[in-house]
Amino acid sequence: MEHSLQETIALLTRTPGALSVLLRDLPETWTSRNEGQDTWSAFDIVGHLIYGDRTNWIPRARMILQFGESPTFEPFDRWGHMRESRSKSLEQLLDEFARVRSENLSELRGWNLQPEDLDLRGRHPAFGVVTLSQMLATWAIHDLTHLHQISRVMAHQYREAVGPWSAYLGVLQCAGHSSP
Amino acid sequence: MEHSLQETIALLTRTPGALSVLLRDLPETWTSRNEGQDTWSAFDIVGHLIYGDRTNWIPRARMILQFGESPTFEPFDRWGHMRESRSKSLEQLLDEFARVRSENLSELRGWNLQPEDLDLRGRHPAFGVVTLSQMLATWAIHDLTHLHQISRVMAHQYREAVGPWSAYLGVLQCAGHSSP
Repeated sequence: MEHSLQETIALLTRTPGALSVLLRDLPETWTSRNEGQDTWSAFDIVGHLIYGDRTNWIPRARMILQFGESPTFEPFDRWGHMRESRSKSLEQLLDEFARVRSENLSELRGWNLQPEDLDLRGRHPAFGVVTLSQMLATWAIHDLTHLHQISRVMAHQYREAVGPWSAYLGVLQCAGHSSP
Repeated sequence: MEHSLQETIALLTRTPGALSVLLRDLPETWTSRNEGQDTWSAFDIVGHLIYGDRTNWIPRARMILQFGESPTFEPFDRWGHMRESRSKSLEQLLDEFARVRSENLSELRGWNLQPEDLDLRGRHPAFGVVTLSQMLATWAIHDLTHLHQISRVMAHQYREAVGPWSAYLGVLQCAGHSSP
């Protein structure tokens, strides 16, 4: 399946609402526990999604549109959300994610990108040259990678409770963790 | 984390709404494509969740409450949803999932299970003796295993589109597929 900006936006539009329905007012035993030291809870992951929307995807897209392949993108701080989330509730984070995502998609739509614009190129600190198309597709799949992670982190909390069924539950065998 | 019936119900309550927000009216390129031969699309997975709610969890719980360890549960047909979903739209399936889940949770709440009831035992065709507690915990984690699967199946559609970022996206490395 080729990248389609319209389909990317359709997915990006839905993530904050889906996470809000899944996580809002859920007991904290589901949302505040992680998979062990230096891993993230559902709470942490929502903070990371906000931080990515603030500092990563749209700022990098602006750089591509304004400056092309030079300068290189700033590296993304995968732990940058920790400071900002600390004093907030999950409900505040869910509201904030909905707001920042909505603002970002308004900006993206406002650019009125044409098919040829998606071939514009930027420079990633690890990958070298990348296209705007690849980056916008990645923004959507980054949402899915963290929905995937949230379901795994929450499932982990019942690893013992499910007894022998753990053998049938793929989520408890998942080793598809994101790179640091 | 030990099994808590209240926390299990809190999670089971939210899944249909979260899937509805994520999937409703999403372009079919996301929802109707799978990962290859004999794999499931998001559409198929919603059908499977309905079928499980109809034929598996609550019927098996009724058997435990009425008959205990004998007879053995009927094996669950993992492809049973295919017939029933074929003529329906995703939107119909999402509505149906919300309805059957709500009915099932009403029935479960109506049983007013006490902590000692959760130790009641049934007989699983593959595992032998299991407890009601393990089975109800599994119902919730079964939701999460399929949320995990839906995010993986949808991400798979952009495997090429993301270019070099595929190395950073854990969902594209996931091998935590459920057993057949």
